[in-house]
Amino acid sequence: MFLYFRPYLSCHRHRLLLSTFLRNPNPKSSKPLLPCLLPHSIRRLSGQIAAMDATVDSLRRAVSEKQAAAEKQGEIVRAMKADSGASKLEIDAAVEGLKGLKAEVSALSAELQAKLAVDGSNGGGLSREAFREKVVNTLERRLFYIPSFKIYRGVAGLYDYGPPGCAIKSNVLAFWRQHFVLEENMLEVDCPCVTPEVVLKASGHVDKFTDLMVKDEKTGTCYRADHLLKDYCKEKLEKDLTLPVEKAEELKHVLAVLDDLSAEELGAKLKEYGITAPDTKNPLSDPYPFNLMFSTSIGPSGLSPGYMRPETAQGIFVNFKDLYYYNGNKLPFAAAQIGQAFRNEISPRQGLLRVREFTLAEIEHFVDPNNKLHTKFKDVADLEFLMFPREEQMSGKSSRKLRLSDAVSKGTINNETLGYFIGRTYLFLTSLGINKDRLRFRQHLPNEMAHYAADCWDAEIECSYGWIECVGIADRSAYDLHAHTEKSGVPLVAQEKYPEPREVEKLIIAPAKKELGIAFKAEQKKIAEALEAMTEKEAMEMKANLESAGEVEFHVCTLGKAVKISKKMVSISKEIKKEHQRVFTPSVIEPSFGIGRIIYCLFEHSFYTRPSKAGDEQLNVFSFPPLVAPIKCTVFPLIQNQLYDEVAKQISKSLTAAGISHKIDITGTSIGKRYARTDELGVPFAITVDSTTSVTIRERDSKDQIRVSVEEVSSVMKEVTDGQSTWADILWRYPTHSSGPAE
Amino acid sequence: MFLYFRPYLSCHRHRLLLSTFLRNPNPKSSKPLLPCLLPHSIRRLSGQIAAMDATVDSLRRAVSEKQAAAEKQGEIVRAMKADSGASKLEIDAAVEGLKGLKAEVSALSAELQAKLAVDGSNGGGLSREAFREKVVNTLERRLFYIPSFKIYRGVAGLYDYGPPGCAIKSNVLAFWRQHFVLEENMLEVDCPCVTPEVVLKASGHVDKFTDLMVKDEKTGTCYRADHLLKDYCKEKLEKDLTLPVEKAEELKHVLAVLDDLSAEELGAKLKEYGITAPDTKNPLSDPYPFNLMFSTSIGPSGLSPGYMRPETAQGIFVNFKDLYYYNGNKLPFAAAQIGQAFRNEISPRQGLLRVREFTLAEIEHFVDPNNKLHTKFKDVADLEFLMFPREEQMSGKSSRKLRLSDAVSKGTINNETLGYFIGRTYLFLTSLGINKDRLRFRQHLPNEMAHYAADCWDAEIECSYGWIECVGIADRSAYDLHAHTEKSGVPLVAQEKYPEPREVEKLIIAPAKKELGIAFKAEQKKIAEALEAMTEKEAMEMKANLESAGEVEFHVCTLGKAVKISKKMVSISKEIKKEHQRVFTPSVIEPSFGIGRIIYCLFEHSFYTRPSKAGDEQLNVFSFPPLVAPIKCTVFPLIQNQLYDEVAKQISKSLTAAGISHKIDITGTSIGKRYARTDELGVPFAITVDSTTSVTIRERDSKDQIRVSVEEVSSVMKEVTDGQSTWADILWRYPTHSSGPAE
Repeated sequence: MFLYFRPYLSCHRHRLLLSTFLRNPNPKSSKPLLPCLLPHSIRRLSGQIAAMDATVDSLRRAVSEKQAAAEKQGEIVRAMKADSGASKLEIDAAVEGLKGLKAEVSALSAELQAKLAVDGSNGGGLSREAFREKVVNTLERRLFYIPSFKIYRGVAGLYDYGPPGCAIKSNVLAFWRQHFVLEENMLEVDCPCVTPEVVLKASGHVDKFTDLMVKDEKTGTCYRADHLLKDYCKEKLEKDLTLPVEKAEELKHVLAVLDDLSAEELGAKLKEYGITAPDTKNPLSDPYPFNLMFSTSIGPSGLSPGYMRPETAQGIFVNFKDLYYYNGNKLPFAAAQIGQAFRNEISPRQGLLRVREFTLAEIEHFVDPNNKLHTKFKDVADLEFLMFPREEQMSGKSSRKLRLSDAVSKGTINNETLGYFIGRTYLFLTSLGINKDRLRFRQHLPNEMAHYAADCWDAEIECSYGWIECVGIADRSAYDLHAHTEKSGVPLVAQEKYPEPREVEKLIIAPAKKELGIAFKAEQKKIAEALEAMTEKEAMEMKANLESAGEVEFHVCTLGKAVKISKKMVSISKEIKKEHQRVFTPSVIEPSFGIGRIIYCLFEHSFYTRPSKAGDEQLNVFSFPPLVAPIKCTVFPLIQNQLYDEVAKQISKSLTAAGISHKIDITGTSIGKRYARTDELGVPFAITVDSTTSVTIRERDSKDQIRVSVEEVSSVMKEVTDGQSTWADILWRYPTHSSGPAE
Repeated sequence: MFLYFRPYLSCHRHRLLLSTFLRNPNPKSSKPLLPCLLPHSIRRLSGQIAAMDATVDSLRRAVSEKQAAAEKQGEIVRAMKADSGASKLEIDAAVEGLKGLKAEVSALSAELQAKLAVDGSNGGGLSREAFREKVVNTLERRLFYIPSFKIYRGVAGLYDYGPPGCAIKSNVLAFWRQHFVLEENMLEVDCPCVTPEVVLKASGHVDKFTDLMVKDEKTGTCYRADHLLKDYCKEKLEKDLTLPVEKAEELKHVLAVLDDLSAEELGAKLKEYGITAPDTKNPLSDPYPFNLMFSTSIGPSGLSPGYMRPETAQGIFVNFKDLYYYNGNKLPFAAAQIGQAFRNEISPRQGLLRVREFTLAEIEHFVDPNNKLHTKFKDVADLEFLMFPREEQMSGKSSRKLRLSDAVSKGTINNETLGYFIGRTYLFLTSLGINKDRLRFRQHLPNEMAHYAADCWDAEIECSYGWIECVGIADRSAYDLHAHTEKSGVPLVAQEKYPEPREVEKLIIAPAKKELGIAFKAEQKKIAEALEAMTEKEAMEMKANLESAGEVEFHVCTLGKAVKISKKMVSISKEIKKEHQRVFTPSVIEPSFGIGRIIYCLFEHSFYTRPSKAGDEQLNVFSFPPLVAPIKCTVFPLIQNQLYDEVAKQISKSLTAAGISHKIDITGTSIGKRYARTDELGVPFAITVDSTTSVTIRERDSKDQIRVSVEEVSSVMKEVTDGQSTWADILWRYPTHSSGPAE
C-alpha cells in the first residue's frame, strides 16, 4: 500500500475519522476545525526555510511601514499645496521627503521580490525551474521519455519511456530484484491489474480513495480544490509585495494545513478568498470527493464492477494463506511484487512525479507482532545517513545524520525489521546514483499515520520540486490481513505451535443474561456486549468494586449512558487453560517503491553540464553509474577505415555475447561530437578503435583513458558494468592513454 | 498487433469486408454465404486426423447399418409371434438372430466409443485431459500460478503467477530481451496501458474488436455464440453413437467454418439445432457483437473515453516519428515493447491460454517496402524445422521439415526479414525448452489474413489443448502507419535521399473541369475524381482510345454507371520530373509473443513423472533448462549438523553474491524427499553438503552427481546457469560421485 501520494494520506485521514467514529458516538464534536495545525506548520517552517521566512517577513513589514509613511507624507504634501500658507521651500522639502520614501519603498520591494525569487532557486544561482527545464529538455530530446500519444496531442499524466528511459527502468527493476527479492529470498508474485470491486471494498479504496474536486459551474471543467487554494496562496505570497505580514502568516498557515482540510473547510476558504475557475473566472461548485480509481466492468454482463488496481499490495494480501503455506508455514517471510498501478488524477501536474499510470515495486514482510527483530539487521546497523525523526520536525530542527543502530536502540525507529528495510532502501537508492546528501528518511507525524500503523518512514529525495516522497516504509501492523479476513471470511492467520502445551491464565467475563434482561429489557444485549469488551484492567477493577460495594456504575458507549451493574449480573474470573498453539494475525512491514519517481530524481541528480573543448557551448552529461546506465559503452572507430570498422564490429559482437548493451557508431562524425552525444545519454564508457590490436577506453566523467587489447576489452567491460570492479580498480591495471584521440 | 487470438481474426475479416465494400458498391452479392469453406475444412482434415475420421465414419456407418438390420429383424420376430403359423423353432432362430444383431450393434458402438475417446488421448495412453489435470494440479499445488482473488472465489480469466511461476516469467522475459532487444539493437519502449479512444479508433479496435455474444433471454447470462455451437457439434460427434454419417459430416463442416460465420449465420445455426442456454435451457437472443476491450474514462469529467490496451503495438506505431529520428532517420530498425494487454473475454475457458489480462512482447521491425533483405539472415539460413505452408494445408498434407533458406528462396516465406524472425523465434522457443517436434510454423491461409498483410506465420505449439498459436509473425505492410497518419494528420513516413537527383517519368491526368461541368453538371466532381484515380495502364489506354476514337465509355464506380468521355474533357500526359528523395511509408514486420501461452506450453512440455526409489509412487518432475528454471539450485546439508549447516550458509551467501537464485533447506527431511520436492519445482541442480571441504552436485534429470570443492561450487553453478557451459561440459571435469547420498 503506497503511502506517499496525497490521496492515500487523505484516505488514512478518513479511516482515522472512521475509527474515531466507531469508538465515539459523537465524532464531530471531537474534531478540531483545523486539525493538526501545530505539527504541520512547524514542519513547513523548519531549519533554513524558517530563517528565509523571517527575512521575508521583516521585509514585508518594512515595505508596509514605508508605504504607510509615504502615504502619510503624500497627504502632508497635498495639504501643504492646498494651504496657501505653505512656502515653496517648505513644499519642495516635503516633496523631496516623499520622493525619498517612495524610493525606499521601491528599493525594499525590489529586495523582497529578489528574496522571494531566491526561495525558488537551486543554490547555484540557476533557479529550480530553469534547472528543471534544462534537464527535461534533454530528457525529451533524447527520448528518455515521451508524452504518450503525442501525435494525438497526448493525455495529461501519461508518459512513455523511450529507449534510454526504458533501459534505465529495466536496469533499476533488475537491480531491485537482485537487491531485495534474491538477497532476502522473497516470494515474488505477479497479479493482474484488473481487480474486482470486493477486494478494493475490503481495502477501503472504494469508499475512501478520493481527492476533493470542484467544477466550473458553467463549463463543467474540473479542478482539484486544494490545488486552486494552494495556487492562490502561493501566488499571493510570491507576487503580492504589499501583502501585510498578518495576511502572509494566515496564507502560510493555510498552506501548512492544506492536506488536512475537510470538504467544508476547503469550500469555505475558496469562498472567503473569492477564488474562481482559473480559465474562465466563473464561479465554482462546492468541493466534493472524486474516487481516483479507473473503473471498468469485468465480463460482458455489466454486473461485475472492477477497477484498475491503485497499488500492487492487495494482490499479496489476498494470497497470504498460500504464500505462508509455500514458506513452510513459517514466519517471518516477505512477498514482493513489481507492476503497474493506476490513479485517475483529477489534474496531473509535476511532470513525471504525478502520473496516472506508474510502476510500483512493493514488499510485504510478514512478521510475528511479538518479534520484530531481524537476523540481518547487523549488516546495516552501522550505516549513517540523514534522518528526520518526528521530534526534529515538531521542534523546528532540520534532518540530521544518525546511525541506524542508534535510531533503533533508542526507539526512534520502532523496530529492527523496519530499521533493516530503511537501511536496505538507503543502500538501494545510493547504489542507483541518488545523492546521499539529498536523500533523507522522514518519519510520519502522528497525524499523518493511519491509526493502525505502528511507525512510518518515507525516503524523500530532494529535486527541483522540493523533497519528494519516493519510498514509503511502514509498519502497518495487522490491518490489511484483518480487513481481508473480515470481508472474505477466510482467516489470514499464522500459528505458532508450542513445543509443549502452555498453561495460560484467561479472563472470563460471563454476563448473566437473565438478570440483565429483567433489569434492562431491550438494552440488555448492548450492556452484555460492553461488559464482554472490557479490558483485563477494567474487569478486575469491576470485580473488586462489586465485591466491596455490591454494585457499580458502568458507562455503556453504545447506549451513551451509565447503568448500575449488580454482583449477580456478571461473573468475572480467571481460569487456567492449556494451549497448544498461538493463532495470530501477522504484522506487515511494507516498503513500497515508486519506481518512476526514483528514476526522475535520479535524472536530476545525475545531470550536469561542462564546457565543450572549444569552450563555445555547455555540454550536457548524465553521470549514471554503470549499473543503471541505459547503454554501457560505445564502440567508435577513430576514423573511417575498413580495418577499424571490422575491429569495431568484432568488439560489438563479443559485447553482445557478454550481454552488454552498447552502441556502435561507424559514421565519420568527429570523435568529440560522438563523445558529447553519448555523454548526454549517460553512457559511462567509450571504446575507441585506433589500431587493430588495442583500443582506448574512456571514462565519461573523468575523461581518463586507458589502453586495452582488443581481446580483453569485452571482459574488462563486463567487469566494470557488472559491478565486480570499479573504474578506479581498472585504471591502475592498464596503461593510461594521455595523447589519446582528440576530443 | 497480436494476430493469433480469434477476436483479432474476426477483426481482420471485418476489415476485409470493409475494404471490399469500399471498392464494390454491392458487397453483399459478392460474399459467399459460408465463406472460405474449402481451405478450412481441408485444414481440419489434414494428416492423421483425416485417417482417424475415416475409421470413425466407417464405424458410424456400420453401427447404423446393424441398427437398421436389428430393427428389421425385430419386426420379423414380432410378425412371427403375431402370426400363429410360425413354429417355435423358427421363432427361436429369429430371436437368436436378433440377439446376434443387437450384440453386434453394442460391440460396434463400444468400438466407436473407444475410437472417439482415443481421439482425445495424448499418445502414451494417458488421455490429454488426464495428462493436463496432472500438470495443472502440480502447478497449482506448487503455486506456479494461483486463480486470482481466490479468497473471494476468483474471477474467470484472471490468474496470478506465484513465486516459481513469477520467476519463470521473469527469466523468459530477460532472455527475450537478450535474444531480441540486445542482439538486434532494438529500441525498447514502455507505454501506458490506459489508452485514449482516438488511438484505438484509428487502429480499428473500437469498431471491430468484437466477439459474437448471445444472452439467455430470461436470466441475461451471456455466452459466446460460437462456443455454444461448437460445444453442441462436439458433443454430438463424440457422444451420439447413432449419429448418421451425413449429419456427422455436416457438424464437422460447421466446426471447420465456425470462425467465419456471420452473426446471422451463427444465429440461424443455433435456431436450426434448437440450441438453448446451457444452464437453464431458456431460449437465447440473436447473436450480436460485444467489444472485447475493457473500457474506462480518463480524468474526472467523464468526457474522455479510454480503454485498457488490447495489445502493445499501437504504442510503438504512434511513436514512429520519434523513434525513426532516434535511429538517425535510417531504416531498417526495430522497436520492441513488453507489457500487459487486456481483453474482456465473454467467457474465458482453456485455463492459462485464454485470459483477460496477459503479457505480450511485441516487435515492430520497420523496413523499406522495396528492400526486405536482412543482413543477418545468413545466421539462421541453415536452420531446419517443421513448417506448414499454405499449400500443404490446402492439399491435406501434414507439416514437414524445411530448411529456412529454401523456404525463403522458393518464395514460400515472403521475404528474408520475415524468414529471419521466424528463425530467431524458433531458436528462442527451443532455447526455453519447447520440444522442437511439437513446434511448427503455420502459414496463414489467404482467408485468414488481412487484405493488407503480405504474409503471416504463426508459431504453433502442441499441448493438451491441441496446436496453440503462441507467436504471430506477420508482414503487415504499411497498414498501421497509414491508419495513424490518416487519423492524426502527422505523416508517419521515411525518406530516402538520392545521392543525386533522379529524373522520373510521372503520369499527369488533368480533367477539364469546365467541359465536365457543362456535360455532367452535379456529377462532374465524381467523374473528375474517378479519372484522376485511374492506374497508369488505364490512363494510357484511355489516351490511346481518345486519340483514335475521340470518345470513350468510362465506368464510374461511385456513380454506378458508365459515362461518355470526349477528348477535350481530360488531358493525359507523361512528364519528366526531377526528384531529390523518395518519401514512403515503411512496411512493418511484426513478431508478437504471447508470453503466458508460451509459458503454459513450456509447463506441459517440461512435465514428466518417474517412479520413486521405493517404486511406491510416481514423482513429478519439471525438466526446465537452467535458463528458465525458477530456482537454479538447492543447498542441502546431508544430515543435520552444525558444521554442514555453516558450509551450506556460506555457499548460499556466495550464490546470492553471484546472483544465482537458490533455496537452502536445513530441515532434517530425508535427502530423497528434499530432491523430490525440488524436482517438482524444476530445480536443475542440487548441492548436497556432506563434508566441510567438498560437496556433491546432482543434476535433476540424469541424477548424475559430481564432487566439487566448496570454493568452486558457486562459480561452477554460475557457469552452468549462465549458459556458458552445459552439464555435459562440466561432467567430465569433475570426479563423478557414484556412492553418493541415498536418494
